[in-house]
Amino acid sequence: MSTELLENLKKGDRLALSRILSQVESQSEAGSQALEALFPFTGKAHKVGITGAPGAGKSSLVNALAHQLRRQQDAPRVAIIAVDPTSPFTGGALLGDRVRMPDLQQDPGVFIRSMATRGALGGLAAATEAFSQVFDAAGYDIILIETVGAGQAEVDVVNLAHTTIVVDTPGTGDDIQSIKAGILEIADILVVNKADRPGAEQSVRYLQAMLEMGYSRSSTAGHHAPEASITETLRESTRPWVPPVLKTIAIESQGIEELLEAMQAHRCYLIESGNWQVKERQALQKAIQRAIAQNLINRWQEGLSPGLFEETLQAVVERKMSPESAAQYLLEASQGL
Amino acid sequence: MSTELLENLKKGDRLALSRILSQVESQSEAGSQALEALFPFTGKAHKVGITGAPGAGKSSLVNALAHQLRRQQDAPRVAIIAVDPTSPFTGGALLGDRVRMPDLQQDPGVFIRSMATRGALGGLAAATEAFSQVFDAAGYDIILIETVGAGQAEVDVVNLAHTTIVVDTPGTGDDIQSIKAGILEIADILVVNKADRPGAEQSVRYLQAMLEMGYSRSSTAGHHAPEASITETLRESTRPWVPPVLKTIAIESQGIEELLEAMQAHRCYLIESGNWQVKERQALQKAIQRAIAQNLINRWQEGLSPGLFEETLQAVVERKMSPESAAQYLLEASQGL
Repeated sequence: MSTELLENLKKGDRLALSRILSQVESQSEAGSQALEALFPFTGKAHKVGITGAPGAGKSSLVNALAHQLRRQQDAPRVAIIAVDPTSPFTGGALLGDRVRMPDLQQDPGVFIRSMATRGALGGLAAATEAFSQVFDAAGYDIILIETVGAGQAEVDVVNLAHTTIVVDTPGTGDDIQSIKAGILEIADILVVNKADRPGAEQSVRYLQAMLEMGYSRSSTAGHHAPEASITETLRESTRPWVPPVLKTIAIESQGIEELLEAMQAHRCYLIESGNWQVKERQALQKAIQRAIAQNLINRWQEGLSPGLFEETLQAVVERKMSPESAAQYLLEASQGL
Repeated sequence: MSTELLENLKKGDRLALSRILSQVESQSEAGSQALEALFPFTGKAHKVGITGAPGAGKSSLVNALAHQLRRQQDAPRVAIIAVDPTSPFTGGALLGDRVRMPDLQQDPGVFIRSMATRGALGGLAAATEAFSQVFDAAGYDIILIETVGAGQAEVDVVNLAHTTIVVDTPGTGDDIQSIKAGILEIADILVVNKADRPGAEQSVRYLQAMLEMGYSRSSTAGHHAPEASITETLRESTRPWVPPVLKTIAIESQGIEELLEAMQAHRCYLIESGNWQVKERQALQKAIQRAIAQNLINRWQEGLSPGLFEETLQAVVERKMSPESAAQYLLEASQGL
């Protein structure tokens, strides 16, 4: 990356920012160089993941949060990364109504970027991490990462956030229960959005009860397998944060101030407890591991003579060889290692 | 694996089956040997993925499908793999009501197995594939794979199925729209479950309209980027299957016969069009690639001197080195390649 482009990025030039994000997204050589050059200037932004089932109103909540943040006295700069393929930010709502955010798009302190990529090995998480670093180096104070809940890829994305907000809506008991089982454990803040719908109070109480069950479990370690107990104990000692359950009506900006306070309280908690550093370290560790895995696979692939993979695959299709044996054979056949 | 264990598996011995599944799940040496030995006997089962948002009633639908299958004249043997962490099959409903399936559990022609693993590199997809192979070799005719929708890991799981059923429930327009945007493209059959709820007809019509939009898009390739056009064209030529939209009330077994007919029609379509073989090939290709990636990472890790990863990570944490440079350094430092 040219020194000029980096300087412009750090000065807050939106064109420089757009250009670097595109370079990074296309996984070009220029993108790698840019990430390399800007890495020393990262590590300051507060990364906040917003996740939940489709239809929970995550985009509206992100929208409302960004507005509220910009109204604060210090008017922090806000970046929005929409990883959710169903998000209106990503154009996923082409088929229906689009949530419009004209104010945000005209605010020079807000930058919205969607993530079109799906499917590459570690694609979503790697790309989100890379985008976060660019925004971080560009001086964005808060990075809101919107992602749809439940899948492993989304959990990976959430893992790189400092603070994870799980959004739910008032619903029948069985719906709530099934959503929670998978996702409650990753929530730092729980939000019942669309709280003007019937059953909001009940949902809040239900989530609070589930949280209490989760936390009381750690004090009855005797009932768990050894591994589970160790995890529970670790969580207990390093994580006295009790996720608050908040009500919002995002499209009317109700409850957003409280949500913001909870976000800031969680950030303070992370820094004071040392967990901020732990999370940063984990995110960097994963980034290194991903880069290593990708590099190893590329090397192996480049060292393989053309057609050999297809030939071997054919033998597997014909059940003359198992996938495991084929892998062994192809590993030995590559000159790239 | 002992020849006896393999023979017992092929004879339909449930204890042998359980034992091999456990060996495979624990990724033990015995598990690898078992997969190796049974691989020549795989390739016959019809793998059916059932996916959709939490609360859509996937488990009830799987339950009803299994019962209906067992009532057929040829009474095919049915395996159920519950990958969905929120499924009652996996014990995800510990916190609330459990869908009980006493009949199924007493039927010797049905085997239910849940998948507890989350988080390993390619973990879910690899484990599901391995389980499918065991069931396939054990003579199970149909393998129902239940998974929660939306995430990349779930899409990976679905990719190994021959037939993918996407389950939805009647809902408001915006909910449906947001769910569909991500998941419609992987559906071979669409089901509106809980069809006794208000809005079922509307949901069916909505889904049909979305499908038509999706298919008409492929004839307006001029509006797409070149890559998109190629994909659309390929899909058009190899995939004249038009996903039917069906209504079910799973807990009352309504609409299940029609769903079964659609499943069987899709299986016939796959075989006649040659797409069955294409899917098999793709699944095996992914299995080989996963095994190669895992092996490369293991080799690299074993060749690394203890403590070096941590030291390098520390330099990255202190911003003295970027994750990319660290990866390069650690790759060169390993003796395992």
